[in-house]
Amino acid sequence: MSYNVDKSSVFSFALDTGISKDRESSRRYLSNLKGMVADEGALEKMIKKEDTLVYEFYELGVPENPGDLAFGTSICYPGKIGDEFFMTKGHFHGILDIAEVYLCIRGRGLILMENPEGDCTYEVITPGMMVYVPKRYAHRSINIGKEPFVQFFAFRADAGHDYGTIETKGFRKLVVEQNGDFALIDNPKWGKA
Amino acid sequence: MSYNVDKSSVFSFALDTGISKDRESSRRYLSNLKGMVADEGALEKMIKKEDTLVYEFYELGVPENPGDLAFGTSICYPGKIGDEFFMTKGHFHGILDIAEVYLCIRGRGLILMENPEGDCTYEVITPGMMVYVPKRYAHRSINIGKEPFVQFFAFRADAGHDYGTIETKGFRKLVVEQNGDFALIDNPKWGKA
Repeated sequence: MSYNVDKSSVFSFALDTGISKDRESSRRYLSNLKGMVADEGALEKMIKKEDTLVYEFYELGVPENPGDLAFGTSICYPGKIGDEFFMTKGHFHGILDIAEVYLCIRGRGLILMENPEGDCTYEVITPGMMVYVPKRYAHRSINIGKEPFVQFFAFRADAGHDYGTIETKGFRKLVVEQNGDFALIDNPKWGKA
Repeated sequence: MSYNVDKSSVFSFALDTGISKDRESSRRYLSNLKGMVADEGALEKMIKKEDTLVYEFYELGVPENPGDLAFGTSICYPGKIGDEFFMTKGHFHGILDIAEVYLCIRGRGLILMENPEGDCTYEVITPGMMVYVPKRYAHRSINIGKEPFVQFFAFRADAGHDYGTIETKGFRKLVVEQNGDFALIDNPKWGKA
């Protein structure tokens, strides 16, 4: 579905759930994370029981013009695969030199970032906090809390998404539960696709 | 104060008030609206009594790069000057061909828009609603409700602001209270600076 960016328009969602009645969300289930988690065995067991929804987001189909903005909400649900928190796949922008802004509306989440040179960083956000993801940084949203992690996002509409690099190489760090809180550990599978 | 866009960073504000403890806001008082309202006499009387805060917003000083985003919150307080609702000055982008996104966090507001060719439009938003302001449209935020109208905004960082055109010509439409609700009327002063 595409968006007419030459006219003003409104997109609505519920500030508590992040869900919009106006549009269909794009949904990613446990089975969509195959090959991307530390404990693939735990993932397989979970999928056999139920292929749970891990996250969903709204793509409004804004045309890829440099003067337009892609925007919407994303909702990452609480849960773990083994010790690893539910997360989005994450991506680089196709045009690396484009930043992105996230605003947390609900929950407690971690934005994991890394650039092609291997610099890794993260920010933890709760409602009312915005993260500025710098140009050139891949970014992934991770729910480290107990309720849905709901965010509003915006970036230049022609940024594009490079999901492949992360799907094949992974992020250098994993975010796991340790002693009741989160911890970043090295990803043993990094670069070994 | 400038923002280091080459590192990740976080900006926090209260989801109820829109106010940040991290930064100083830019503030616009009644006296800053001189020459821009329909009833200048009513404005003068109000200023003599008290030069009330009409709106405030956060400029984070993001460098004007095309790959970066300017973002923050704006808060327009409830009130009227004569029949005219409290409003922001409004602006075109210096680079006309750059859009902007607003997300309403609190209150009830109207986004008034017009392009150089004279097309006028508006959207009314409440919490959870986003307005897409198309490229080439000047935009002004107007509080048509009873509580602060709080918004999050984002746009390409090199957009720039052209306040002068609106300051001298005005918007073609005014937003006034009529029969307990809002109404758009022609601006009798339009273009007569």
